[in-house]
Amino acid sequence: MSHGSGGRLSHELIEKIFVHHFANDFLRAQTDSATFETAEGQMAFTTDSYVVDPIFFSGGNIGKLAVCGTVNDLAVSGAEPLYLSCGFIVEEGLPLADLEKIVESMAAEAVAAGVSIITGDTKVVNRGKCDKLFINTAGVGRLSADRRHIGYGNTIAPGDQIIVSGSMGDHGIAILAAREDLSFRSQAISDCASLNGLIATLLDRPADIRFMRDATRGGLATVLCELAERHETGIRISEEKIPVKELVKGACEVFGFDPLYLANEGKVVLVVAAEAASDVLQKLRAHPLGADAAIIGSVTTNHPGKVLMNTAVGGTRLLDMLAGEMLPRIC
Amino acid sequence: MSHGSGGRLSHELIEKIFVHHFANDFLRAQTDSATFETAEGQMAFTTDSYVVDPIFFSGGNIGKLAVCGTVNDLAVSGAEPLYLSCGFIVEEGLPLADLEKIVESMAAEAVAAGVSIITGDTKVVNRGKCDKLFINTAGVGRLSADRRHIGYGNTIAPGDQIIVSGSMGDHGIAILAAREDLSFRSQAISDCASLNGLIATLLDRPADIRFMRDATRGGLATVLCELAERHETGIRISEEKIPVKELVKGACEVFGFDPLYLANEGKVVLVVAAEAASDVLQKLRAHPLGADAAIIGSVTTNHPGKVLMNTAVGGTRLLDMLAGEMLPRIC
Repeated sequence: MSHGSGGRLSHELIEKIFVHHFANDFLRAQTDSATFETAEGQMAFTTDSYVVDPIFFSGGNIGKLAVCGTVNDLAVSGAEPLYLSCGFIVEEGLPLADLEKIVESMAAEAVAAGVSIITGDTKVVNRGKCDKLFINTAGVGRLSADRRHIGYGNTIAPGDQIIVSGSMGDHGIAILAAREDLSFRSQAISDCASLNGLIATLLDRPADIRFMRDATRGGLATVLCELAERHETGIRISEEKIPVKELVKGACEVFGFDPLYLANEGKVVLVVAAEAASDVLQKLRAHPLGADAAIIGSVTTNHPGKVLMNTAVGGTRLLDMLAGEMLPRIC
Repeated sequence: MSHGSGGRLSHELIEKIFVHHFANDFLRAQTDSATFETAEGQMAFTTDSYVVDPIFFSGGNIGKLAVCGTVNDLAVSGAEPLYLSCGFIVEEGLPLADLEKIVESMAAEAVAAGVSIITGDTKVVNRGKCDKLFINTAGVGRLSADRRHIGYGNTIAPGDQIIVSGSMGDHGIAILAAREDLSFRSQAISDCASLNGLIATLLDRPADIRFMRDATRGGLATVLCELAERHETGIRISEEKIPVKELVKGACEVFGFDPLYLANEGKVVLVVAAEAASDVLQKLRAHPLGADAAIIGSVTTNHPGKVLMNTAVGGTRLLDMLAGEMLPRIC
């Protein structure tokens, strides 16, 4: 199970099996979207399969998630999301009304995000051979050359500021609450949202945006650990600056989760040139999806490859990728 | 289950739920690949999820199938397949050696077909929540304007010849044999293959190629029925001209299947201008994947919307789309 956590074992699986055998530079880059050059221009291409359990939860459902997730993977690469495919694997006996509700919300989210779902496929398997519904979405977007560095992060430098677009862990706790039918179920609302509109407001000076990534499986900590390892740079963040809702804090205490590792489905982590940070923060906060944005730390020359956090109680904690699985089937 | 058959009920599901809600002209066209115009040129985009049971069979496995299927969906649209994504949904406990074997054959097939797998995703679900392994592949290809009609078939005209690139039903019987562990298992070999190389040899005069489609789920009969209905044209074929291997014929008799409805994973159905038919046939037969190609019938002005077959015993049979499910999880 831990091979699917988005953490350390997922990375090993990806490195040892997929990157090894499919050997090409696109995959080696391990960005959220691959980018390719056509004779005529630059495109971004991404895919994700969604197996979230349950398929309906506060703030969304598997279909909305599938659209938002792929839109976001393109958007954080600096691309303008254009076209989506979707592949449905349906368990025999899934009520058609449920399928239709999910498809409706996918259509609504596609309209809201300004993308078109232009090709698809449906497979049906016998009862017990999948769990209600799995959805794959792949997406294609247009990427202008001056934004190509954003998905890779190869321009990050010491002094750059780390920004999150809002509170951490909302999606994770919404899924936990829906799954366990917890009393705070209706208040624990997933942040599932398409971020391309928000991100578009930040890109007037693309060179200032050094890196973006949506903090999904594995959460904020995993995004930062990947970044620090890949670019052999240090990262230092402050726990007290990281926005976490009271409800999420409380649930984490009760269930022993860490909000920094919980999945988000509508939050972007940015690395921004120091001189642009307050401007980017202002723009984020001016948008409904970025109202709680905060600068949480910076890129350092110290401790290359490592992410350190000043804890609320005055200590320092080393963050690592998840070694196991915290909440399976979160997306 | 029958909603996944590729036949009549699949079409109803697609029309009533997906096309209805995702309302756009790309989907309405119901081609294998959607085509879209970028500022700079024409692209094709397609997706398929693979749930074949069992995941290993004579002539291939779920991974090879996933690469060939998406390459073929692009190729039959007249596009040059370039880039693939892949999304894995893995059941907890799948031996890593099996996964690696499958990934290896995907990598080999991608090299053979001249495409790159450039982006991917892996999800793991608990034991019993999927069946070993499901794979989604999406694909992007380059489509030149003079080939755009090929996926749609909007230039077909009475007198055009219907050609199949080889024997029908091989994949379907290979899966049946593998699933039931039949005595002829090793001889019943799937035709699973990437057809873009074969198809590329036919496209020097693209206007002569009116339509192509790979005859997968639902088989030859479903491809022809769709075409006749969509374009309100008649189609007449001759049973005795349709290549079917003796082994497949025998298995169909024993198990009550019809080779015209069995899935193929390496066969293309073409509609070709009458004056070009013998040239196209020659080119097909010159390629190892088209050695058994045959002209099997023609487009007619009579009986618009219907496909009629002159049977081997001298009668006439009306072909319709599959109403139910013949062999589930064939691909």
